[in-house]
Amino acid sequence: MSKELVFGHQSPDTDAIVAAKAYSYLQNQLGYDTEAVALGEPNAETAFVLNYFDEPTPRIIKTAKNEVDSVMLVDHNEFQQSVSDIKDLTITHVVDHHRISNFQTDQPLYYRAEPVGCCSTIITKMYDENKIDIPVQLAGLMLSAIISDTLLLKSPTTTDEDRIAIKTLAEIADIDYEKYGIEMLKAGTNVAAKSDQELIDSDAKSFTMGGKSVRIDQINVVEFSDIDKRQDDIKKAMTAEAADKGYDLFLVLVTNVLNSDSRMIVIGDPVAAVEKAFNNKLSKDATMSLPGVVSRKKQVVPPLNDALS
Amino acid sequence: MSKELVFGHQSPDTDAIVAAKAYSYLQNQLGYDTEAVALGEPNAETAFVLNYFDEPTPRIIKTAKNEVDSVMLVDHNEFQQSVSDIKDLTITHVVDHHRISNFQTDQPLYYRAEPVGCCSTIITKMYDENKIDIPVQLAGLMLSAIISDTLLLKSPTTTDEDRIAIKTLAEIADIDYEKYGIEMLKAGTNVAAKSDQELIDSDAKSFTMGGKSVRIDQINVVEFSDIDKRQDDIKKAMTAEAADKGYDLFLVLVTNVLNSDSRMIVIGDPVAAVEKAFNNKLSKDATMSLPGVVSRKKQVVPPLNDALS
Repeated sequence: MSKELVFGHQSPDTDAIVAAKAYSYLQNQLGYDTEAVALGEPNAETAFVLNYFDEPTPRIIKTAKNEVDSVMLVDHNEFQQSVSDIKDLTITHVVDHHRISNFQTDQPLYYRAEPVGCCSTIITKMYDENKIDIPVQLAGLMLSAIISDTLLLKSPTTTDEDRIAIKTLAEIADIDYEKYGIEMLKAGTNVAAKSDQELIDSDAKSFTMGGKSVRIDQINVVEFSDIDKRQDDIKKAMTAEAADKGYDLFLVLVTNVLNSDSRMIVIGDPVAAVEKAFNNKLSKDATMSLPGVVSRKKQVVPPLNDALS
Repeated sequence: MSKELVFGHQSPDTDAIVAAKAYSYLQNQLGYDTEAVALGEPNAETAFVLNYFDEPTPRIIKTAKNEVDSVMLVDHNEFQQSVSDIKDLTITHVVDHHRISNFQTDQPLYYRAEPVGCCSTIITKMYDENKIDIPVQLAGLMLSAIISDTLLLKSPTTTDEDRIAIKTLAEIADIDYEKYGIEMLKAGTNVAAKSDQELIDSDAKSFTMGGKSVRIDQINVVEFSDIDKRQDDIKKAMTAEAADKGYDLFLVLVTNVLNSDSRMIVIGDPVAAVEKAFNNKLSKDATMSLPGVVSRKKQVVPPLNDALS
């Protein structure tokens, strides 16, 4: 069996990197020959997690066809979020917790999707189904991914499956996940250390909605003031990036991870669709308050997709 | 939780009807409220199976939105093979063993695909994973679906998973599956009882390949002569149907289920792509011999897709 690469989406968050490592380890135990890689540098939160559990950072790739014929995707399926040469590769496996869109194959494949809060939750179940033990350090990474995706189980994307998985993993890793989780989330919100360009890029995803090219970034903070004071510079960077990459709409969701609220910065058009999607008016400073919104996938993408379609 | 409908593809074969019944029963045991329905009349083989195990024929529907908001798909995912108003419905679950194409959702969902010979094989595993017992009659239906899709485990689509599932189901149903299987396959090949229109329609699926609309039907026989003597009339029906429905290419794969060979009748264009796909010349009577070919999914769709793309 020839080697395959396993990776999460571009602009990787903790789940994208951890799910690749966790799925690669599982598949290797089941007889496949895989390597977990990443489509970008780990963000500050992920770097904290890898360091905390003393796990190596995956190798970063730009293309895959130069190394392998076949790949396994985790935590994404939409081709525009995947490796640049995805259309030249055979996709043999997908494990994901997102909608399915802009995805197709010529051949039957393994596809496992569940509408849970975190891809690593599904992989935790797959270890159990296949009766493979999760190594202690990997359990630490996987519970970190669940904390990250569900904001310590507070996001509306959180399901009972995530709650069960995090407890299972915390037992294996022998860790107080609530105490560790706050420390980890804070480590990921150090916006002061990031340039404007890094801020608008580090957790950004691209979507096609009703023919429009939409870019949605999310920045976690512990205080909105960390972003407010840099807002003009961030908007300039967003405008330049949208012009450069051809985005019709560029949205930056600024989420306070401690009180589960967001504000959104909006660049581009159609603004009316954004206002319709969230039943709210854009302020003069091109921002919108979104109380209780913390999930891009569940609370931003679906209403925006409806409004644009 | 509101009621959902569960169904397989249009022009249903035994797996499309059985997988819907099997998945609906499983989901109801797990707390969902579902009803298995069908997108067309059972074929002769399926009618034999339902009669043999004394199971009711599912209700046939043309549209779903008039009854429900949400649906579960089995044994297919491509929208052109699904219910006519699929785009107006929320798809919450898919269980399938085909490639993924022309499929998308706005929301995360349950999707379970495995590259095995039969959708009912995956559902057999899911009963085990969820620790739900398979009722005796349902086990008989499910092993019939595996016999049908794999031509009694002889098709190249057959995997070890199918072999394990059929043995598990034969034990539950307390049946000699090899003896029963030959009887069942013969019951499905009674082409004399079918009109030309029924023959070209009863197991036909539509595909989009390289911008071309392609229709591929499969007819099982025990002797090629059953079709040879009606070939001119069948070609007339294919030509009329292609004109009526706008198919660029209409292929009818005639498969001898006892010796695992096929001949293909070809109507439409581009003929050159068909010849390239199978590395073979079309005879003057618009047919092509395809020794060893029995699987539309594995031996017809992929090379044709390559040749047309």
